[in-house]
Amino acid sequence: MPDPSRLSRMDRSIITLLHGPDQPGIVARVAGWIHQHGGNVLHADQHLDRQENIFFQRVEWNPQISRDLRSEADAFSSFAHQDLGMNVRIALSEDRPKIALMVSRADHCFHDLVLRVRSGEWNATITGILSNHHEMRSASEGYGLDYLYLPVTQDSKKAVEEEQLAWLKSQGVELVILARYMQVLSSDFLDRVGCPVINIHHSFLPSFAGAKPYHQAYRRGVKLIGATAHYVTEDLDEGPIIEQDVTRVSHRHGPGELIEKGRDLEKLVLSRAVRRHLQNRVLDYGNKTVVFD
Amino acid sequence: MPDPSRLSRMDRSIITLLHGPDQPGIVARVAGWIHQHGGNVLHADQHLDRQENIFFQRVEWNPQISRDLRSEADAFSSFAHQDLGMNVRIALSEDRPKIALMVSRADHCFHDLVLRVRSGEWNATITGILSNHHEMRSASEGYGLDYLYLPVTQDSKKAVEEEQLAWLKSQGVELVILARYMQVLSSDFLDRVGCPVINIHHSFLPSFAGAKPYHQAYRRGVKLIGATAHYVTEDLDEGPIIEQDVTRVSHRHGPGELIEKGRDLEKLVLSRAVRRHLQNRVLDYGNKTVVFD
Amino acid sequence: MPDPSRLSRMDRSIITLLHGPDQPGIVARVAGWIHQHGGNVLHADQHLDRQENIFFQRVEWNPQISRDLRSEADAFSSFAHQDLGMNVRIALSEDRPKIALMVSRADHCFHDLVLRVRSGEWNATITGILSNHHEMRSASEGYGLDYLYLPVTQDSKKAVEEEQLAWLKSQGVELVILARYMQVLSSDFLDRVGCPVINIHHSFLPSFAGAKPYHQAYRRGVKLIGATAHYVTEDLDEGPIIEQDVTRVSHRHGPGELIEKGRDLEKLVLSRAVRRHLQNRVLDYGNKTVVFD
Amino acid sequence: MPDPSRLSRMDRSIITLLHGPDQPGIVARVAGWIHQHGGNVLHADQHLDRQENIFFQRVEWNPQISRDLRSEADAFSSFAHQDLGMNVRIALSEDRPKIALMVSRADHCFHDLVLRVRSGEWNATITGILSNHHEMRSASEGYGLDYLYLPVTQDSKKAVEEEQLAWLKSQGVELVILARYMQVLSSDFLDRVGCPVINIHHSFLPSFAGAKPYHQAYRRGVKLIGATAHYVTEDLDEGPIIEQDVTRVSHRHGPGELIEKGRDLEKLVLSRAVRRHLQNRVLDYGNKTVVFD
Repeated sequence: MPDPSRLSRMDRSIITLLHGPDQPGIVARVAGWIHQHGGNVLHADQHLDRQENIFFQRVEWNPQISRDLRSEADAFSSFAHQDLGMNVRIALSEDRPKIALMVSRADHCFHDLVLRVRSGEWNATITGILSNHHEMRSASEGYGLDYLYLPVTQDSKKAVEEEQLAWLKSQGVELVILARYMQVLSSDFLDRVGCPVINIHHSFLPSFAGAKPYHQAYRRGVKLIGATAHYVTEDLDEGPIIEQDVTRVSHRHGPGELIEKGRDLEKLVLSRAVRRHLQNRVLDYGNKTVVFD
Repeated sequence: MPDPSRLSRMDRSIITLLHGPDQPGIVARVAGWIHQHGGNVLHADQHLDRQENIFFQRVEWNPQISRDLRSEADAFSSFAHQDLGMNVRIALSEDRPKIALMVSRADHCFHDLVLRVRSGEWNATITGILSNHHEMRSASEGYGLDYLYLPVTQDSKKAVEEEQLAWLKSQGVELVILARYMQVLSSDFLDRVGCPVINIHHSFLPSFAGAKPYHQAYRRGVKLIGATAHYVTEDLDEGPIIEQDVTRVSHRHGPGELIEKGRDLEKLVLSRAVRRHLQNRVLDYGNKTVVFD
Repeated sequence: MPDPSRLSRMDRSIITLLHGPDQPGIVARVAGWIHQHGGNVLHADQHLDRQENIFFQRVEWNPQISRDLRSEADAFSSFAHQDLGMNVRIALSEDRPKIALMVSRADHCFHDLVLRVRSGEWNATITGILSNHHEMRSASEGYGLDYLYLPVTQDSKKAVEEEQLAWLKSQGVELVILARYMQVLSSDFLDRVGCPVINIHHSFLPSFAGAKPYHQAYRRGVKLIGATAHYVTEDLDEGPIIEQDVTRVSHRHGPGELIEKGRDLEKLVLSRAVRRHLQNRVLDYGNKTVVFD
Repeated sequence: MPDPSRLSRMDRSIITLLHGPDQPGIVARVAGWIHQHGGNVLHADQHLDRQENIFFQRVEWNPQISRDLRSEADAFSSFAHQDLGMNVRIALSEDRPKIALMVSRADHCFHDLVLRVRSGEWNATITGILSNHHEMRSASEGYGLDYLYLPVTQDSKKAVEEEQLAWLKSQGVELVILARYMQVLSSDFLDRVGCPVINIHHSFLPSFAGAKPYHQAYRRGVKLIGATAHYVTEDLDEGPIIEQDVTRVSHRHGPGELIEKGRDLEKLVLSRAVRRHLQNRVLDYGNKTVVFD
């Protein structure tokens, strides 16, 4: 039976994600710092990419009860950066990151994500919906969410992206989710958005990258179809993979049924990727990820 | 409780695989023929490819107890071909197809397949092992299997294939399994082999077709690796897929561990494909298959 | 390329589910009847339980274009019942069965099912929501659905069930889905409801039947958790299983995380079971099902 | 590119598994000890059972190149036990644990395990086969393995177990695997065997514990069958679960086909459990396990 004071400590924890060149003693020095500051490690997970010699670590700890969470986090951050030479990301248990969804016409991922946030499953808020179509306006408003409708043409694309960026900045958005958004974001948008962008690709990448993957899968006669959630980078469909899954199909399933089965898979895979991202379990480097489960 | 006469009938059944242009009444005419000849349908499964308008059917039935299995099968075959315009394949429950394995150095699929046949899991016999390496000779001989060792060089390839073809013909081989055989078979070989050839590709096709797929998968940072069993055609890695499966991996798994996990997957996927083929459940057309489970 | 007249025929099909004592020639006679009436079989699937000697068949066909769907279905029904001695169920492609959901407090299956019907994924309508709690009233009304709120106590249970039955009859409900309804339905209710009732059990039955299955699973230290959708019978948690699935867990997952992972599984498994039921692919007999995929 | 001296260090590592009452600073002290002794942590994984307040850790490290592996391991062991109050298990990278297999008549797991050891997949040796039947004698001898054949009757059981124990002790066996051994081991045997015993249960426990699980599964009409590998304790089928998996089945599969599908599952699940055990990734406590993947 955990004692109550312990439980209340658990309510306020700091999570850090570190990565950088490996060197002897990092684990000891991180653990030592926390211990010396009166903290208690709840979880620690680490990984060494031996080919690249990069060290990765996720540590979650309760600071001493008298400490201010934010300043303790800042102190650790300085230490890890300056003394250990690590790249540092920090999150507090009380953080509730702001999410924006970008959608087009397909609404299954949209409903799934909004309902998860509304039910309190994730510690996050949705600030609004950006769309190049008007189909989800009324559902969005039914959920009490702002809806920024900006149709995209070849000519308007640059201006639309400016408007989207301005809106995302003004809202302080910390995560953009492409919930079946059917426009390619420009390199300029990605350079300037200033937060991670997660996409669901309706395919088991690298198979069937590109358009109409379920039709491609049908023509190839595959026995499994898949979906892939990844961070968006300038290389279309080549960003670091966060999560993938597959479902079994047979000759009985036409393209329409593949699409229907694919929808369930897309919802599941995207939601798992977002959950892990929100739990600060995902580190991306190069074109890969480390996901601490 | 099935009565014994019924059970003994079941021991002797005919299985047919039909495919051809769809037309009204095929199902009725096939079932009618069997019924009029005193047969009893055990299983019937069918499929219509609506895009191509091709009809597929697998029917297994007990002929009347007084009939000779082979002549009844021939009679049905004539009917289905001439009256219905179907392509017909026929197998008898008493058939024990002859299999040849082609192997190189990796022995996990080799042992797995041989042990399945030896344990009586499949109704088949193995006539021998063909290899371009000598590594599996002693294991093959331990199993009491002939071992045709023919090393392949760029210069010798044509002559080796002639020798392999001659051996396969002389043995009356009805199925060739490439159990991690690391040579590409020539179009000429495939044209002349006269029986199906099943290959296990150590990848989830069409991802990572080609060499060193687990290294490719590692570099891409995928979260699932797969294996694909397919009939071999002249388009390398593009033949009709019979079976695929995947297994979950993470950043913790280096190329060596992907290879190790891949071995288990390759064994499983290849054995499932061979089982279905031997049960006469697989029809290939174009570059796809219909697998009647 | 299918010709348009063919496609329009496909829009209007009849689906029948037959089961009864096996006898020679059933397949031929069913196919023959359809062919003689100018129909065209789209799908046919059959199964023989050899231990019980029961024959099962699902046939979907396009009747001749001039025929009335309903009267053709009735004619077939008489034939199959009287001439073949089969139990017969018939559905028309134009049917849109009426569904009622029964819910308590957990809303994940509720939203999932309602959104599938609203998106047109299934050919069905939801007539309303029955609940022993008030939590889902506003969401139901947001979806434009009637909400029959009837709290249940030991004393009121009998009267509540009368009221529920009266409502279900008055609405002509053809399928009841227990979407995490936490009351046990009485035998009397099940005798009189007059339509199938599908339940989602938040466990991999027969493991952990009964209360708090995720806590049971946690204490037992299982490595997989499951969910089971089944028809409801008087034997609690013992009705015929329609669909099951599992998800991997580890020592890292406490009861709360098992519940969270379980929710995704419950949604998926229940929706797959309902889809198959609505596609008239499920036959139940004894305490088992035949599911024609 | 790792430098060669680094690689050679990696060849000689120490792995420790710790568990005991949680206390602040354990992680720091373990990491600190290793760092102070010039070691380099390769992997560290930990877990806190918050309900029981038990801390678990697996650490693998390279000691300083000049140190003797065994004495460094002993020094760490003393530290962890005396200073941290932990239960300690230690393994060296050069260890090759001795395994004994106990078998009855089914040989699929037997061949699978022997072939894995022979191929060098696992760092272990097989000292011999114990059986209450004679069926696997010739295969064992073909593999060059001793075969201790001791038929068991109700009367002889006690004496046979004595003989088995004596043999296991004389061989210095460090792991016993029940590869479908169909006798229940007595409490006395388990008390005295002095090493872990892993069993494969041909079922998804806790479903269908006991005899003929595939027949039970068939009668219940389940849609998935499973297999469970667990440490053997005095409570039959209730020992700590190491690994479980399932495979999909349908109404088409009779008991015989469930058994056939089950065999593939049993091989896979047992081999995964043994692999993790041999990699020193499994800690059991109470009736559960922590498996560090």
